[in-house]
Amino acid sequence: MSSVFNWPVRVYYEDTDAGGIVFYANYLKFFERARTEWLRSLGVQQQALLDADNTAFVVKNVTLDYHAAARLEDQLTIQTSITRLGRASVQFLQQAWCGETLLNTASVTVCCVDIATMRPRPLPDHVAAKMRAA
Amino acid sequence: MSSVFNWPVRVYYEDTDAGGIVFYANYLKFFERARTEWLRSLGVQQQALLDADNTAFVVKNVTLDYHAAARLEDQLTIQTSITRLGRASVQFLQQAWCGETLLNTASVTVCCVDIATMRPRPLPDHVAAKMRAA
Amino acid sequence: MSSVFNWPVRVYYEDTDAGGIVFYANYLKFFERARTEWLRSLGVQQQALLDADNTAFVVKNVTLDYHAAARLEDQLTIQTSITRLGRASVQFLQQAWCGETLLNTASVTVCCVDIATMRPRPLPDHVAAKMRAA
Amino acid sequence: MSSVFNWPVRVYYEDTDAGGIVFYANYLKFFERARTEWLRSLGVQQQALLDADNTAFVVKNVTLDYHAAARLEDQLTIQTSITRLGRASVQFLQQAWCGETLLNTASVTVCCVDIATMRPRPLPDHVAAKMRAA
Repeated sequence: MSSVFNWPVRVYYEDTDAGGIVFYANYLKFFERARTEWLRSLGVQQQALLDADNTAFVVKNVTLDYHAAARLEDQLTIQTSITRLGRASVQFLQQAWCGETLLNTASVTVCCVDIATMRPRPLPDHVAAKMRAA
Repeated sequence: MSSVFNWPVRVYYEDTDAGGIVFYANYLKFFERARTEWLRSLGVQQQALLDADNTAFVVKNVTLDYHAAARLEDQLTIQTSITRLGRASVQFLQQAWCGETLLNTASVTVCCVDIATMRPRPLPDHVAAKMRAA
Repeated sequence: MSSVFNWPVRVYYEDTDAGGIVFYANYLKFFERARTEWLRSLGVQQQALLDADNTAFVVKNVTLDYHAAARLEDQLTIQTSITRLGRASVQFLQQAWCGETLLNTASVTVCCVDIATMRPRPLPDHVAAKMRAA
Repeated sequence: MSSVFNWPVRVYYEDTDAGGIVFYANYLKFFERARTEWLRSLGVQQQALLDADNTAFVVKNVTLDYHAAARLEDQLTIQTSITRLGRASVQFLQQAWCGETLLNTASVTVCCVDIATMRPRPLPDHVAAKMRAA
């Protein structure tokens, strides 16, 4: 649906584990950074959404397939695109690449909520408009 | 298939984020702790597997549905059970609970590999036997 | 000054790095857990302090000497005691042990603040009283 | 002694905690990234040192003073310089800045070791030469 947003991630000691590879949970950090930078590239700042009207994006569902492992000092690219834009939710396809090697593929659904009550709310109009144009 | 293994997890500052809730990636840490403690309860030590013959479990697939959020100082219980025991892989059902509230549900498939080559290998016999008896 | 509070910590994959040892920053997580559990043992709950009057403890200073490294599956004990109790601050001595081996020693000073303004405020009376009695 | 090396760090959700600020341990991650990028800027790759002759840098001592807190989406600059270059150790001065605000100041001493035995060893000649020229 949308164009692909690329974000670079370098692997540091903090990301690796005693198996010598990136700890499996840490790809969710990389994917969150990429979604945040994609929002920033659209002119959407999450702290401002929180401050203005208590709105935040929370993750509702993740499906993640691991194909290959990254190691210390690897330079990754996180590819992000929208696969579904709902009234109160957004579904992303995200992939971590190391050069020509696909490391893993994720489908991530985030939901727009009032952070105080955690109840869903429609995406703010200006945010939805920017996402549709992305 | 197997009985359910319970492991307690306390939520500390390190687990939370600026939204006031546990950061979504950190449940994968909790689930990994629970799988490790389940292995330990069966008498399987992962460092010994690594040292003895380079064998490790790596995660191949995660599906994770988030229902409710945990907060600072919450006392969680991670429930773990086996849903499929293959020749070189194990599939787990894992759930995070806070009291009577189900926070999220995961299906996690791990694969037994030679950590040097990352190629699959059959579960060691004594490990498979312990898992079947669990 | 105070008695010593012991808190157990198990080393999981999440704590280690590609060097095969616990990543140096993660001891600060272990120390925070131990300070929180020490507060809890005194009947002080940090979420309640935040909710009741915006009070939190923030770290002002850390001095940390590393002597030996912990590895995957090690069972550590974090020892915590107070070395100075001020009007708005508390200084802790904290040590991580693995059996008879001292891994590292930290001096940590925390300050009581209004989290909205980050300005120092006196320890609440009931908290100071419990700490003096510890 | 040396010139100052600047490295940018963006604050993401993963870095913050329920107090709304960057968790105190995470500055040590930022400082490690900056030391690694400084080494990379000199042409020193840590994975190659590990592979070539089991050599790694481990942290021996940290002194860290916190002055102000960073928040979600803040853009930080980590400043790194050498204050002492020994035969088997290097002492760094590192500071985290957010715009004109100094967040914290650290003194970090790292030691060159054989990672298998954790025993100190002299800095490899080509590494020491590059550091002296930095």
